[in-house]
Amino acid sequence: MAAMSADSIEFWFEFASTYSYPAAMRVESVAQQYGRTVRWKPFLLGPIFQAQGWGDSPFNIYPIQGRYMWRDLERICAELDLPLIRPSTFPRNGLLAARVACVGHDAVWLPAFVRQVFTANFVHDRDISQPDVVLDCLNALAPDPQRILDAANRADAKAQLRANTEQAIHSGLFGAPSFLVEQELFWGNDRMEQAMRWRGRPTGTDSAG
Amino acid sequence: MAAMSADSIEFWFEFASTYSYPAAMRVESVAQQYGRTVRWKPFLLGPIFQAQGWGDSPFNIYPIQGRYMWRDLERICAELDLPLIRPSTFPRNGLLAARVACVGHDAVWLPAFVRQVFTANFVHDRDISQPDVVLDCLNALAPDPQRILDAANRADAKAQLRANTEQAIHSGLFGAPSFLVEQELFWGNDRMEQAMRWRGRPTGTDSAG
Repeated sequence: MAAMSADSIEFWFEFASTYSYPAAMRVESVAQQYGRTVRWKPFLLGPIFQAQGWGDSPFNIYPIQGRYMWRDLERICAELDLPLIRPSTFPRNGLLAARVACVGHDAVWLPAFVRQVFTANFVHDRDISQPDVVLDCLNALAPDPQRILDAANRADAKAQLRANTEQAIHSGLFGAPSFLVEQELFWGNDRMEQAMRWRGRPTGTDSAG
Repeated sequence: MAAMSADSIEFWFEFASTYSYPAAMRVESVAQQYGRTVRWKPFLLGPIFQAQGWGDSPFNIYPIQGRYMWRDLERICAELDLPLIRPSTFPRNGLLAARVACVGHDAVWLPAFVRQVFTANFVHDRDISQPDVVLDCLNALAPDPQRILDAANRADAKAQLRANTEQAIHSGLFGAPSFLVEQELFWGNDRMEQAMRWRGRPTGTDSAG
């Protein structure tokens, strides 16, 4: 992996993750306000949850937390003026989309693609595990969507996503979205601003955590 | 329970809860900024965790989350200029202190007492389950600390704390701190400002959740 520049921030996201949705939609504009560039880091939560003994999203295993999470997400999206439709299936399998994001790690279309996939899942209730849905998300963004999808199914992309997930575990990640700045870990959409402010120590108090 | 006035906010806390510490220290000043009065609601997380199958704090059961939590708390306290010493025992038993808080639910000394107990636990690493420590927290705040401690050990106070915990469960609470405004539930120190802004719908965007 290339070294992070002093003013970059790693944004770790998983396409099935509910709080990753508002985070993905706003991370670029927030980063711009703080003078940071975003490094998009797709990874899979499944293996991390399985290591904790969870075979499903904790929001399904613990329904009281799940009920709260959906209401909380609704309020967050309302405050951000983001549309939200609760997906008819949760969590959805984001494996293929995450592999596409690995193929596009340097591409100009990556941020828009990520937002398209989250919108497909959380606004249009589409099954993002399906190749035709992922192709739709690439359309109008990249010159040859089918070529990208083919690359996503090859060994390089699969290995890259596995490496990302291993790096996530190594960095202490256990949920999404997460942010890494100079090895410092921040978990949650609600820690985005604090992560952006981080300069090797706490700075400022514009959100009190 | 008395009806909440339109501009009050219920602050649900548990003395063993790490994020309840910064929340308890700042809730009155934040409420004042938003024109709200605080209703202090002590409750116990133990019975709620047990109902989820947890015999200990989830931060002990899931050590990766626990490690992150302590670091996160450290950053939050640094941003708020609050001292923090990681307690040598976690979680500590806050039963007696919570019963005292029930005795004082209308008393002028209650907010200062709550802050003293959190400071004893999270700054001075004292065992808040011990009567002499709780007495120290009452000293200089109330005219007859021993009388209050005696009342905390009587049936009325015990019943009040049980009733609070049952009301918490009934309101969908599953963690601390939590806030209730017009039946709307907000969980976490990081939702305090959003809860304060709540007027039956999302208002403002001064913190993006």
